[in-house]
Amino acid sequence: MKLLEERILKDAAVRAGNVLKVDSFLNHQMDVKLFREMAEEWKRRFSGKKINKILTIEASGIGIAAIAAEVFDVPVVFAKKAKSINLDNDNYCTKIQSYTHVNMYDVIVSKKFLTKTDHVLIIDDFLANGCALMGLLELADKAGAVVEGIGIAIEKGFQKGGQEIRAKGIQLESLAIVEVMDDVTGEIVFR
Amino acid sequence: MKLLEERILKDAAVRAGNVLKVDSFLNHQMDVKLFREMAEEWKRRFSGKKINKILTIEASGIGIAAIAAEVFDVPVVFAKKAKSINLDNDNYCTKIQSYTHVNMYDVIVSKKFLTKTDHVLIIDDFLANGCALMGLLELADKAGAVVEGIGIAIEKGFQKGGQEIRAKGIQLESLAIVEVMDDVTGEIVFR
Repeated sequence: MKLLEERILKDAAVRAGNVLKVDSFLNHQMDVKLFREMAEEWKRRFSGKKINKILTIEASGIGIAAIAAEVFDVPVVFAKKAKSINLDNDNYCTKIQSYTHVNMYDVIVSKKFLTKTDHVLIIDDFLANGCALMGLLELADKAGAVVEGIGIAIEKGFQKGGQEIRAKGIQLESLAIVEVMDDVTGEIVFR
Repeated sequence: MKLLEERILKDAAVRAGNVLKVDSFLNHQMDVKLFREMAEEWKRRFSGKKINKILTIEASGIGIAAIAAEVFDVPVVFAKKAKSINLDNDNYCTKIQSYTHVNMYDVIVSKKFLTKTDHVLIIDDFLANGCALMGLLELADKAGAVVEGIGIAIEKGFQKGGQEIRAKGIQLESLAIVEVMDDVTGEIVFR
């Protein structure tokens, strides 16, 4: 998506450790006008898919998913990172390996809000190694929900997540795929 | 706000320990159409105020704040709960006492995205003892930003937060104020 790529080139910074800093418009300060354009783009790319719910994960996916929910005219559910394991019969639970932090954390979604009648579109801000997405796919699988597709703002194409998701036959629509980024020169190349 | 009060009476559940469960439409599954109506109501109540930014805190405030940002036509910044104290010169930081969890946690906002030129509207889903709001006010104060007002979805009127905020002279607009709630009878009475 041209608009997002141009915004990345204009406002993103590349930091050591494969960090793409987009906190001025995507995941700390949020440009909701840009989110609206992104949501319209996903709406086009997933046209024909019967989607009745958007699924995301806290925290930085929530803003994008909320705007997308307006455009798709459906509710959104966000999976919660559980600090204390509050394992009960009311929630589906999975463990996700953190990318930036090294530890594992539990992620839960209420059984009331993800069911076998649901056809979900998963939305998130970043796709790198795919751990968060794999966790969301597992939650959907446990609920018996159908995943109609995945919409990502920025995919790091040089990490394995995108390839693994596509190998599952799931329609994955990343609006910007970074192929190369260099924290010394600041260079960013899109696929 | 009639629409929100009716929705609470229809879909909320009162649980022991002063817990008002509104996870079917407000803070786990999110009804973005309702959020749009709430945002339009805040827009009316804060008409005349020059607001250039919305400030909220992760996680459950983000969805409401994102929709409100569209209605106010401004960007939104969410304060981040910091797991590991990453104290540096780039962020304002404060400590907030958790209401449901007993511990303290650090909350940060980048100095780049909250400055003395900002006139912010703070948005959050709940106001009870006011600890989260006091933390956001402290961050705004450190940044030299002007807080033009605070928009809350549900205030627990029987807890001290609302009174303390109003005593500061800040315009606080809670769209539903619960005066009494009873986890045995399920009764909910609004102010």
